[in-house]
Amino acid sequence: MQSAFPAVQSASPYFDEARSADVVNARMSDDADPRLKQVMSVLVRHLHAAIKEIEPTHEEWFAAIRFLTETGQMCTDWRQEYILLSDILGVSMLVDAINHRRPSGATPNTILGPFYVADAPEYSNGTNICLDEKGEPMVVEGRVTDIEGNPIPNAKLEVWQTNDDGFYDVQQKGVQPDSNMRGVFTSDADGRYWFRSVKPRHYPIPSDGPVGKLLGAMGRHPNRAAHLHFIVTAPGFDPVITHIFTPDCPYLPEDAVFGVKRELIAEFNKIDDADAAKRVGFSSPFWSVSWDFTLATSGNLHRQNT
Amino acid sequence: MQSAFPAVQSASPYFDEARSADVVNARMSDDADPRLKQVMSVLVRHLHAAIKEIEPTHEEWFAAIRFLTETGQMCTDWRQEYILLSDILGVSMLVDAINHRRPSGATPNTILGPFYVADAPEYSNGTNICLDEKGEPMVVEGRVTDIEGNPIPNAKLEVWQTNDDGFYDVQQKGVQPDSNMRGVFTSDADGRYWFRSVKPRHYPIPSDGPVGKLLGAMGRHPNRAAHLHFIVTAPGFDPVITHIFTPDCPYLPEDAVFGVKRELIAEFNKIDDADAAKRVGFSSPFWSVSWDFTLATSGNLHRQNT
Repeated sequence: MQSAFPAVQSASPYFDEARSADVVNARMSDDADPRLKQVMSVLVRHLHAAIKEIEPTHEEWFAAIRFLTETGQMCTDWRQEYILLSDILGVSMLVDAINHRRPSGATPNTILGPFYVADAPEYSNGTNICLDEKGEPMVVEGRVTDIEGNPIPNAKLEVWQTNDDGFYDVQQKGVQPDSNMRGVFTSDADGRYWFRSVKPRHYPIPSDGPVGKLLGAMGRHPNRAAHLHFIVTAPGFDPVITHIFTPDCPYLPEDAVFGVKRELIAEFNKIDDADAAKRVGFSSPFWSVSWDFTLATSGNLHRQNT
Repeated sequence: MQSAFPAVQSASPYFDEARSADVVNARMSDDADPRLKQVMSVLVRHLHAAIKEIEPTHEEWFAAIRFLTETGQMCTDWRQEYILLSDILGVSMLVDAINHRRPSGATPNTILGPFYVADAPEYSNGTNICLDEKGEPMVVEGRVTDIEGNPIPNAKLEVWQTNDDGFYDVQQKGVQPDSNMRGVFTSDADGRYWFRSVKPRHYPIPSDGPVGKLLGAMGRHPNRAAHLHFIVTAPGFDPVITHIFTPDCPYLPEDAVFGVKRELIAEFNKIDDADAAKRVGFSSPFWSVSWDFTLATSGNLHRQNT
């Protein structure tokens, strides 16, 4: 009688170029954690397949070892070069997408980034989060609703962005006012929110380390398209970590971390009307952005393997 | 008229789960180094495919970021944790195999490992490289020939191994005599060489870092099967970096770095004969190993892509 897997039983435990990934994966113990085994066997299989396609010389292999080492050694308490590597290779966005497969119509997720700060100041609607008085004034207003369009009152909207020089407050402690360009707003009974700020600017991710060198070698620039960050939460709904992007940023189609989704590009309307400006506490002109967030009820996400 | 690649021209530059690797790879500049572009596009394609198979949670992804960071931070001038990672995943052996596809009959290569030291002492044939007088005496003798069996005189044989405690001299500076268990021999007019030493012992790779933890989690041990290292060189021939393994080591089928090849397992014969022992300057019993090296002429290697 023939076994369905005759080769497996008698396969040599010794290294062999053709069977290399199988030889390595066969070494894992039956007692090891099943998820770790699954993860490692997929990684080993793809790693060996990649190396067989690339056929690195010893020098190229060692250049890779050096790159991985330097990337680890660039990391500090306030700099995570491996997250940056994950970001520029589209891996962070992919992991985000896999974990946030929302029903159609819900606001899509995008990556959190390294500049989120918990416990930002809570403000009443209309407050201006720009504390350093630089930049072009902007009003953002809209609604938080469920997928059927019903308002979600008391939703919490955490917003953060760079100042007009292209830096987050935490990158310029002592230079910018504390909590500049960040705040927490709450939607009203109609699901409405609004706040004031300045039009965001594009800015570069840190490019003075190994990841920046790799970006340069690939002929890519380190700039992120101009955006505001949001986390929108409400009880019973899936939290949304998302951005809205300005439509006129030259880096929109080439955001260094692939954070842009077409559905997240907003309209920014320039309002040159003294009365309208006065109503929102600005002098004209100012930018007006209307943006609604649509939340999916909790538990509607689905990853395929778990 | 239809283009052969209608989709490529109009493909969105924005991230999209299904097309994720293509979106990332399309970002590389036409001016970037073609080899770097090839390497990165293969890596990105396999990395994204692996992540789509694994579907990591955010927590798993961050555990991977942390592992990669700690592996880099474990590296020092005398400890290369990323090479260790490459070793235990079979990558070092695979790169070695790709770069040393020798004609049939030639002695196969295996990995160099971290304990090679250049400029070891040159000895005349028969010298005992064991300077600390521990272990079971061993004689190794054989010939260096070309693939047709013609002797190669004046071949240089560099040999190194652990002492009977399972450590290389460079791991125990000040404890072992300098250059203990290493030396350089030269083949005679008949291609013959011989030297004396002690039977090698298995030993663990360094397992106190992130790579050791990963090995443990996979249910694997850190031991290398007992072996002697050789580099054999002769003008006009492809240098061979290789091992010979003892046939009785329990770790032979599960060498932690996949260095064992069946063709590199030697016979170790125990000789319990006072006259034979006297002839080689030992008291009996001693181990006798006969091992020939077959060198391929230079330029016979082939990598497929270059």
